[in-house]
Amino acid sequence: MAPKSTPDELVQAARTGDRAAVARLLSIVERGGSEAHQVGRATYALAGAAYTVGLTGAPGAGKSTLTSAVVAHVRRSGERLSVLAIDPSSPYTGGAILGDRVRMGQHALDDGVFIRSMATRGHLGGLALATPEAVRVLDAAGFPWVLIETVGVGQVEVEVAGAADTTVVVVNPGWGDSVQAAKAGLMEIADVFVVNKADRAGAEQTAHDLESMMDLTDTGRWRPPVVRAVGTTGEGAAEVWEAIGAHRAHLEGSGELGERRRARVQAELDLILEQRLRAKVESLLQPGARAAVDADVAAGRLDPWSAADEILHPLDA
Amino acid sequence: MAPKSTPDELVQAARTGDRAAVARLLSIVERGGSEAHQVGRATYALAGAAYTVGLTGAPGAGKSTLTSAVVAHVRRSGERLSVLAIDPSSPYTGGAILGDRVRMGQHALDDGVFIRSMATRGHLGGLALATPEAVRVLDAAGFPWVLIETVGVGQVEVEVAGAADTTVVVVNPGWGDSVQAAKAGLMEIADVFVVNKADRAGAEQTAHDLESMMDLTDTGRWRPPVVRAVGTTGEGAAEVWEAIGAHRAHLEGSGELGERRRARVQAELDLILEQRLRAKVESLLQPGARAAVDADVAAGRLDPWSAADEILHPLDA
Repeated sequence: MAPKSTPDELVQAARTGDRAAVARLLSIVERGGSEAHQVGRATYALAGAAYTVGLTGAPGAGKSTLTSAVVAHVRRSGERLSVLAIDPSSPYTGGAILGDRVRMGQHALDDGVFIRSMATRGHLGGLALATPEAVRVLDAAGFPWVLIETVGVGQVEVEVAGAADTTVVVVNPGWGDSVQAAKAGLMEIADVFVVNKADRAGAEQTAHDLESMMDLTDTGRWRPPVVRAVGTTGEGAAEVWEAIGAHRAHLEGSGELGERRRARVQAELDLILEQRLRAKVESLLQPGARAAVDADVAAGRLDPWSAADEILHPLDA
Repeated sequence: MAPKSTPDELVQAARTGDRAAVARLLSIVERGGSEAHQVGRATYALAGAAYTVGLTGAPGAGKSTLTSAVVAHVRRSGERLSVLAIDPSSPYTGGAILGDRVRMGQHALDDGVFIRSMATRGHLGGLALATPEAVRVLDAAGFPWVLIETVGVGQVEVEVAGAADTTVVVVNPGWGDSVQAAKAGLMEIADVFVVNKADRAGAEQTAHDLESMMDLTDTGRWRPPVVRAVGTTGEGAAEVWEAIGAHRAHLEGSGELGERRRARVQAELDLILEQRLRAKVESLLQPGARAAVDADVAAGRLDPWSAADEILHPLDA
């Protein structure tokens, strides 16, 4: 692979198993901009075979350890898989591969696993737009599974994890953790619940709390199973994978998988349109104009319709 | 009042207590368009004194009867108030005043009460944008209270009711009603819960269900009280009004009222900007272009970024 390879050449190399090409494509996607859109164009038609699994939960819930245990379980069956760790708090992850090796050290030398962190990028849409692009790179590179693990439960991370085919929500034993999950909006996106660190006191109570909340909001459709696991020992990893498989079978059997994916890509297009329209308006505004208009509206000097006229006036010029 | 009065003249007339002028202003707001924006400009600086109360809940929960009972209670204290009944399902309510007289007949001859229905309008943003404008008309006309009652619990109605200073969620006794409330997203917007028809079996259970759900999601901030009422007899109407007053005192005491209102008007401006940008893009597109692009994206022929290029291309011309 020449150092000046084009995105198309990199995609071709990635499809023959060139891991360095995959890594470079992900760096391009993470940076954003026109080169990233070239990668997007090159991978879109090649993608669609990979199944995506989002894993989310509060910081400290042991998501990384649980993911590692699940990866180890899957690898025993010989299946290849990739992991995207989403970390909006990290300003830059150009050197993330080293960090990832430390994080999931046991898989560092396994060619059947590809692990990569993604952090905030400067370009519009950030992780909510970069993640599906990164998934398509891994998909086009032939990984049949892409696990998307989030570091925290910020709004973006919940969106990103919720935009997977199957979303796993990880909670811990102890009073209040299911409450935190509900507050973070995780009840709505969960397809599978995992009570991780289930060897600690309170695991039964937490599982019971989750079941109670589901009783109250049961939609009559898929009801997320609650699985106990201990990431550090690998206990329960097989059951977690089994629950993911059951949800996948449900989505495939009901035709919901295709619907979900179509809705997802439309939502992605909507988000791109929104971001680009916003950028267009911003580019037409004088710096600080929106803030000045907001202040006038708050002070009662300007009604919202006149404010919109002022902001959008450059568009009509 | 001349039949050809301008919006400004109508606003002046409304401020002197001319009910016909208020009715005409609301019709203009309901129709939308440039005349409505003139009304918006004329009322914005005059508004801010009225306190808004949203009432929502499933169809059949007895919201209208409960609202009527609350109105009767408030009128006994001599305070004036107005009611906006939001009904997105009705295609047109030009003749709504007659309907409203039937609905809340006991107040038809009371000059201290102004009742009006609002239905779907053709213009962009619909009820989510028309409602705050209508509230400002009633506010500028000097009503110290505006009750916003929704007919159902569709997304728009939940948004509209949730955008009041105090939001009252009405449920009924019996298994499952609190569940329905949770599914409709009403737990998040409730400042006060009313178990209406509380003379029926199951009222205690429903109140208990609501408290349980709040235990699970307690934020440590304002906890919505659960009030029992019987709209048809007026029982509990005083307690409902008292709970609304307690929430108002909480918002005013904590400074949250000002914050909420500022956030609300910013959200209104955002919605107007979004709608107008969308309209701008639509106006630039060939009819059916988005549908064709969507189909290409769904079929894998076009990636989302290229799709956005195609849709937004006219903007750069």
